[in-house]
Amino acid sequence: MSQIRAVKLEVINTGTELLLGNTLNTHGAWFGRELFKLGLRISRQTTVPDGDAIRDSLQEALGRADAVIVTGGLGPTSDDLTREITAEVLGLELITDEAALRSLEGFFALRGRPMVDANLKQALCPVGADILPNANGTAPGIYVPPRLNGRSNCAVFLLPGPPRELYPMYHAEVVPRLRALAGVEKLHQALVLKFTGIGESDFHQGIDARLAEVPGLEYGYCAHIGEVDLRLIGDEEALEKGRKITLERFGSYLISDDESSLEATVVRLLKERGMSFATAESCTGGLVANRITNVPGASEVFTHGFVTYANAAKTGMLGVSAQDIETHGAVSEVVARAMADGALEKSGADIAVSVTGIAGPGGGSEEKPVGTGWIAVAVRGGQTEAFSVFHPRNRKDFKLAVSQAALEAVRRRLKARLS
Amino acid sequence: MSQIRAVKLEVINTGTELLLGNTLNTHGAWFGRELFKLGLRISRQTTVPDGDAIRDSLQEALGRADAVIVTGGLGPTSDDLTREITAEVLGLELITDEAALRSLEGFFALRGRPMVDANLKQALCPVGADILPNANGTAPGIYVPPRLNGRSNCAVFLLPGPPRELYPMYHAEVVPRLRALAGVEKLHQALVLKFTGIGESDFHQGIDARLAEVPGLEYGYCAHIGEVDLRLIGDEEALEKGRKITLERFGSYLISDDESSLEATVVRLLKERGMSFATAESCTGGLVANRITNVPGASEVFTHGFVTYANAAKTGMLGVSAQDIETHGAVSEVVARAMADGALEKSGADIAVSVTGIAGPGGGSEEKPVGTGWIAVAVRGGQTEAFSVFHPRNRKDFKLAVSQAALEAVRRRLKARLS
Repeated sequence: MSQIRAVKLEVINTGTELLLGNTLNTHGAWFGRELFKLGLRISRQTTVPDGDAIRDSLQEALGRADAVIVTGGLGPTSDDLTREITAEVLGLELITDEAALRSLEGFFALRGRPMVDANLKQALCPVGADILPNANGTAPGIYVPPRLNGRSNCAVFLLPGPPRELYPMYHAEVVPRLRALAGVEKLHQALVLKFTGIGESDFHQGIDARLAEVPGLEYGYCAHIGEVDLRLIGDEEALEKGRKITLERFGSYLISDDESSLEATVVRLLKERGMSFATAESCTGGLVANRITNVPGASEVFTHGFVTYANAAKTGMLGVSAQDIETHGAVSEVVARAMADGALEKSGADIAVSVTGIAGPGGGSEEKPVGTGWIAVAVRGGQTEAFSVFHPRNRKDFKLAVSQAALEAVRRRLKARLS
Repeated sequence: MSQIRAVKLEVINTGTELLLGNTLNTHGAWFGRELFKLGLRISRQTTVPDGDAIRDSLQEALGRADAVIVTGGLGPTSDDLTREITAEVLGLELITDEAALRSLEGFFALRGRPMVDANLKQALCPVGADILPNANGTAPGIYVPPRLNGRSNCAVFLLPGPPRELYPMYHAEVVPRLRALAGVEKLHQALVLKFTGIGESDFHQGIDARLAEVPGLEYGYCAHIGEVDLRLIGDEEALEKGRKITLERFGSYLISDDESSLEATVVRLLKERGMSFATAESCTGGLVANRITNVPGASEVFTHGFVTYANAAKTGMLGVSAQDIETHGAVSEVVARAMADGALEKSGADIAVSVTGIAGPGGGSEEKPVGTGWIAVAVRGGQTEAFSVFHPRNRKDFKLAVSQAALEAVRRRLKARLS
């Protein structure tokens, strides 16, 4: 991004639990994605235990970086030393911030809990630094601008560790200050396009060269099972060009342009079309229904889920012919179609998807190896369509990949219906 | 652990994708848990981009630590510089290791793929260092013992980044060398006890003081939604004492002592008792069935899953009385019991669990707020038992907490049946 001056940025996460493996450090990846949207990259991320260990790593980072973001260690316990050590390292005195103290008192009063003395230190702030209000916890953040830093020209952010406190504070308080530091007052924008049905290499071969030619556009891919997210950043014009290049080529594989998941997109399309939905699952064992019901408001459109793991369940719950299972096998086009049709009939829903396959590790054969699956989509008053998939992966990844293919088949059918 | 000399250990993860947030860094937590089993703790973890950035962080770590583990950057591309930079920093010459070269040639021959020149550098090794064989990829690991290190007394491990290559190499090659470094030839053992139905604070109040008194025992907790894992390490005697103290107090809440999940434990108990299993889910939307079918071999015991999201599904699929739903509400003891009984009857299974609740964000009332749920367990030839739960959390966490309570209810019923 030619408009953004290079800012060397480091992240330090404090927390013994992160190093013991009790808690997965998701901050690193989260900061990476968020900072990418501002055109910034992390040059180094460090995790240190609670307590005094922050001292060395902070001192080193101050000598290298233009900005350091520290998370954790702002709580009331004796192990929470980030505030104290930062002030010491920067040679700044800590004083009680009256507004922060009143806010703390208000936090406890609202909850009818007594404020203990240990909390008092949470209102301490290096002289001249900014208090960053915390609407979701007791620990305010702190911003020390470069001009206060006697040791180097580095800005320092101290932020709380819990995501529900960290994320809102980052967006409200850190982003504008980082923008100013980076010399970008004008808002840069980010766009996330989610795709399914194609792989990252399709993008490399298909559009990489053209995206690279768009002035001021940065882009990156993030591949998951059955999904590739393309992230674009730049000004409005660059984003629009990037979007156009991408969608001309891969538009039919687009899940969403607003970070919505595939299941949320399916629920939205069902609502828009006023259609109800049912699932009939064998190998995915309820995963498709589970994903759909993760979406708030799914109950408006999702009514019945048939998890027909045993053959007796396929016949009993969905009316699949035992003879068909005997003749074609439970993993077959005939049975997938009969499951989708049966789900439609038994539920009275407007659209139904069925999944049958071999998740492994057992149950495979030469003709139908582990990873084989059939998916069918039945629509009230329409043709039932079926297709096979092959995902020779471990059991959980197979289930995820097949559930993705099933939801994508529903999305396509809904798009085709009224678009 | 008094027997283990304190080893200062640092982990450096290389990978631009980790800092961009494209990939979650799971290595930190994984190493933390694995090293804990050896009585070792990570004193600092650092993530740096691919390429030259490893140089500074390695140099700094060599000055601080007794052992440094580096992951990533051992591949064949121009960005993969870990091997070269480490040799340079340590002042060691790189030479081709003939055994590693033959192993590489074998890897490609086996797969019928040509070996390109870029792969040749993967057979390079600092003079005198150990090549760590990689059964699952092209990049062998490297171990530089302290005696070769001219700069400090620090041991260096270079390991591949992908978990399927890293994990086996760690266990086969790194663990024995770390044991030797730490002066512990005798195998220390680790024990993981998984519990549900009680919280971490119950352990603190109940047994912390007694565990702390066991000589040579280290312990730590890892809390998830609806689950607390207690990790013990020490010699056989210490472990046995720790286990006894814990189980005397909390034995009835034990899920497993072999790291098996709750769902895997339920599947095992079902198999042992020769019982088949069905689920009837409303608010969890298929999550209970999904978790059960994540377990390999679940098809031997799990037959039917009824995801009755709409009231019409509860009546149509399970025979719940529409009048009961009208009178008591879908989230009620009466409906939960009728769902479990219906699942048993319609499936012919030996045991069935039902779940009905309000996941939110909508649908709550003063009498039944978001987070309210009812669970029932029906057993062929036995009484149906029901109980209520309250988990006012976000939608996904609510589903997870309630599915955990449902599976735990099944586990208890199975344990009571034949133990």
